[in-house]
Amino acid sequence: MSVTAAKGFTAAGIAAGIKENGNPDLALVVNNGPRRAAAGVFTSNRVKAAPVLWSEQVLKSGQVSAVVLNSGGANACTGPKGFQDTHATAEKAAEVLGRGAIEIAVCSTGLIGVLLPMDKLLPGVETAAAQLSEHGGEKAAIAIKTTDTVHKTSVVTQDGWTVGGMAKGAGMLAPGLATMLVVLTTDAALDSDVLDKALRAATRTTFDRVDSDGCMSTNDTVLLLASGASEVTPEYEEFAEAVRTVCDDLGQQLIRDAEGASKDIKVEVINAASEDDAVEVGRSIARNNLLKCAIHGEDPNWGRVLSAIGTTKAAFEPDQLNVAINGVWVCKNGGVGEDREKVDMRYREVHIVADLAAGSETATIWTNDLTADYVHENSAYSS
Amino acid sequence: MSVTAAKGFTAAGIAAGIKENGNPDLALVVNNGPRRAAAGVFTSNRVKAAPVLWSEQVLKSGQVSAVVLNSGGANACTGPKGFQDTHATAEKAAEVLGRGAIEIAVCSTGLIGVLLPMDKLLPGVETAAAQLSEHGGEKAAIAIKTTDTVHKTSVVTQDGWTVGGMAKGAGMLAPGLATMLVVLTTDAALDSDVLDKALRAATRTTFDRVDSDGCMSTNDTVLLLASGASEVTPEYEEFAEAVRTVCDDLGQQLIRDAEGASKDIKVEVINAASEDDAVEVGRSIARNNLLKCAIHGEDPNWGRVLSAIGTTKAAFEPDQLNVAINGVWVCKNGGVGEDREKVDMRYREVHIVADLAAGSETATIWTNDLTADYVHENSAYSS
Repeated sequence: MSVTAAKGFTAAGIAAGIKENGNPDLALVVNNGPRRAAAGVFTSNRVKAAPVLWSEQVLKSGQVSAVVLNSGGANACTGPKGFQDTHATAEKAAEVLGRGAIEIAVCSTGLIGVLLPMDKLLPGVETAAAQLSEHGGEKAAIAIKTTDTVHKTSVVTQDGWTVGGMAKGAGMLAPGLATMLVVLTTDAALDSDVLDKALRAATRTTFDRVDSDGCMSTNDTVLLLASGASEVTPEYEEFAEAVRTVCDDLGQQLIRDAEGASKDIKVEVINAASEDDAVEVGRSIARNNLLKCAIHGEDPNWGRVLSAIGTTKAAFEPDQLNVAINGVWVCKNGGVGEDREKVDMRYREVHIVADLAAGSETATIWTNDLTADYVHENSAYSS
Repeated sequence: MSVTAAKGFTAAGIAAGIKENGNPDLALVVNNGPRRAAAGVFTSNRVKAAPVLWSEQVLKSGQVSAVVLNSGGANACTGPKGFQDTHATAEKAAEVLGRGAIEIAVCSTGLIGVLLPMDKLLPGVETAAAQLSEHGGEKAAIAIKTTDTVHKTSVVTQDGWTVGGMAKGAGMLAPGLATMLVVLTTDAALDSDVLDKALRAATRTTFDRVDSDGCMSTNDTVLLLASGASEVTPEYEEFAEAVRTVCDDLGQQLIRDAEGASKDIKVEVINAASEDDAVEVGRSIARNNLLKCAIHGEDPNWGRVLSAIGTTKAAFEPDQLNVAINGVWVCKNGGVGEDREKVDMRYREVHIVADLAAGSETATIWTNDLTADYVHENSAYSS
């Protein structure tokens, strides 16, 4: 049910002709109110796409009426013309929806450095607006796919209110955030500051800890729109937990569909002196190409885990490190532990635990293995 | 001529049986004096192999009589027993050479987390000592290979004195340093403090800027031994330049032989506000898996260069960035530049220039493309 699971929202997804292969490439999500509160988090990449620069401005008011999303082009590194195109997209949506352009967020995804075909995109906005429906969430989720093999949606329903959402993203997944576009909607009656707090708390431990290939995108956007249509104002903790659950679910779907991946790797760092240490160590392990290759080969190569830990500034003593792979403590006290032959790596999910023996903090980073298919997908054509 | 090009050195390389396939796996390099000055730089990984911990102690005296090197096992993450084994190796070499153990450096390379077969290694030291020769440099270079397809040597001869060396390394190449072992020798008559200064200056801009796969080893060691046998004391600048030239040549050989690589990529960052900025940006570009895949596919995907630059803290304005690939300025002022179709990427060397337009400093980082062969080499067996 995606972004239309919550009351007060309509959506559409169409093929506007932006993608040369004729696949759906334009989505529209509209908040029909009565409230239009919103929050957003964006890529921490300093090279930001035009739609990110625009949507950051839109979100300053804490009000979003609609989101236009396109696949087939990132509109990043496209200069003043690229920004004008994003602006024109918002203006067109504002015109057909009867709203103000400054309440229209825009998201784009696809190849960097190419201008969007506005002669196709702008008529596409009109077409999408004509197809807006309370059942349009699925189509919207499909229209934002790039190299995604499946569309991603998630819904949590509580007592009288709902949080739902859609995501796209398959490669260039890294903290701050992934190459991903996410739109979450809720019919809870909440103000933008509450939405902002819940969204930042949720992304910090979900999307920000999904690191498929260590590459940070220019276009990442996660939006949360609240219609208030349920007329229910949940407790903050309850609402935040629902948002976190949806973000976590969508993040897991991104990992499971990462380009070329054959393994989903859960890197759990325990007994760290601080959460920052745990995250730093987790990311270092998650980004180690040699380890990612070893996991692909179902080789419990814990030496590569230790060499990755050793590159960090985290508090630990090398001779106190312990590493478990799929439950077998293959490294104890920085040296050889249990027999690596005991490690069963036949299944898609691989669980690495790195015990820093330096405190009580923990963090989990998700990544994928590095495969020949990843290389193929990212070398055989521009994306 | 390798490590025996300079006068005063003998070397040997033999098959001691450490490698199961029977290939050469033990090298011995001996400084016959009259001087025994030495300097060394080691991995900055905090998880250090036993031979690194040992050799760091040896180098504190600034005196090295001999180096024992083995392939077939890294002796890293092997606990107190691993350190005892390194110590026993030095003791054995000291015994057969009639020197003190504290003057014997030890280097190991191979799989992490496995104890060395000392019943083969120690007799091997005796065998190698019996085969020491002024022509043994080539055999020593061959015996330290792991996944290297070729052995690497380099020599610079000046007026009456010589700097020569050997290197191994193919994967896990990254700053601080690569998975590499390097032994340089010279017959120049110089003290250890001069050697140290020249070696640190040379490695800072050569081996430390070779970043094949972003992975930092537990065993990296670069040693420089001076016999003084030429009885010539060159000017510092002249000597430093010779050491830099040999390091640069060996570094280039490492890149050209990197695991699975089909392209050697020179990432040159220009007009940076500081050298540190230039190095940070260069490394970020060199470690971007998506870009490395694109280069493999001969795709001049400059958007991935910009997205990598954007993840750094370096001084720059996104709309002032320029990027050239093989001489074509495909990105100008942060946007589309010259026609990417003009970029000829048929050859092995690829030259990326990133112009930060923020100052006048520069740095060059060398890396490789990311290929299915790299994945295969690092997933099909433990290394």
